[in-house]
Amino acid sequence: MTTRIEDNTMPIEHFIVLEGLDGAGTTTQLDRLVEHIGKKNPAVARTFEPTDSAIGRLIRSIQRGEESVTSESLALLYSADRHNHIYGNGGIIELAGSGCFVLSDRYFYSSIAYQSSFCDPDFVRSINRYPNPEFLIFIDTPVEECMRRIDMRDGRKEIFEKEEILRTVRSNYLKAFESLPLNVKFLRLEGTLSIEETTKAILEFLNL
Amino acid sequence: MTTRIEDNTMPIEHFIVLEGLDGAGTTTQLDRLVEHIGKKNPAVARTFEPTDSAIGRLIRSIQRGEESVTSESLALLYSADRHNHIYGNGGIIELAGSGCFVLSDRYFYSSIAYQSSFCDPDFVRSINRYPNPEFLIFIDTPVEECMRRIDMRDGRKEIFEKEEILRTVRSNYLKAFESLPLNVKFLRLEGTLSIEETTKAILEFLNL
Repeated sequence: MTTRIEDNTMPIEHFIVLEGLDGAGTTTQLDRLVEHIGKKNPAVARTFEPTDSAIGRLIRSIQRGEESVTSESLALLYSADRHNHIYGNGGIIELAGSGCFVLSDRYFYSSIAYQSSFCDPDFVRSINRYPNPEFLIFIDTPVEECMRRIDMRDGRKEIFEKEEILRTVRSNYLKAFESLPLNVKFLRLEGTLSIEETTKAILEFLNL
Repeated sequence: MTTRIEDNTMPIEHFIVLEGLDGAGTTTQLDRLVEHIGKKNPAVARTFEPTDSAIGRLIRSIQRGEESVTSESLALLYSADRHNHIYGNGGIIELAGSGCFVLSDRYFYSSIAYQSSFCDPDFVRSINRYPNPEFLIFIDTPVEECMRRIDMRDGRKEIFEKEEILRTVRSNYLKAFESLPLNVKFLRLEGTLSIEETTKAILEFLNL
């Protein structure tokens, strides 16, 4: 059951976010979407979180276990990276404001879903009061399939990549989407669709 | 005028914080205090913020202008560094809890004073809800003297080291100290005292 809420804060126009569990296929879809949308709209930008800034790189090294910090400290780092991603020079607001379509692989809903598995959810919410995207897409790939894909990858698993945690993260995502503001265009996609079907469904939803 | 407030949150026992403007002499005093207190109390630890962790190093590189982020992003980084400093392995709570006296060169009052010059003060407060120290000492060195000492230093000035900003920072400090909880032992010291007089006054206040 979805109970959308009234929210006078305007979402960021032209800003499109893909969310999903690790292994859900958001990166694959983002590549395909950028290619398709780029055919009709020359101004398309692709971005992701954590970003490739110095803060983003630090977050990745923590996720790989090279640095150790408290869960709340990590949540604050994500928010620091995000603030700069949105409001910094050449950031989302600047790009989207210039009429460019900005597609992001993950946004603050990732923090709500992932960090709330380790920290007080109210704390995570309180440090992630960011504007919503115009379009929000959740690729709801089953946890078993995400785990299978993660297992197939090379390299060591990151700390979030454990089945039990993914179940909690999925439940956190669904809970967050229950109270989405009315002015956010939201699509939840069954993650059992093929890659092609998923891209097609998203493009229809975006109507670009 | 100081209007101390009731606060049921317990300060961190054995935790001593020195605050002051850049150039106020907190580092000099901390060195002297650690030496004096160490003569009678074998368990004394010296610490500082930003810390020497990976997050602290990133903050320093931003302060030197090597990386550029939004002011709010920087404030979130300070809080991320601090959370780990307090609650992380071998952090303030662990050390002070073991009976060790922990002296810190700067704590969250630095963020309240400095970051509030660039960000919404309510935002800075909201991301710095940390426990108070048992002892809080403010070395109130005149802005002109701080500027003189900063000018004498080698290397380029950091972004906070400008006279007008220091005046705002001092005013933010004083405002924050007006509403200190009653259970925090607070000392404001005239920064015109000599180095020796200042150490003596602090030692009398701490009564260690």
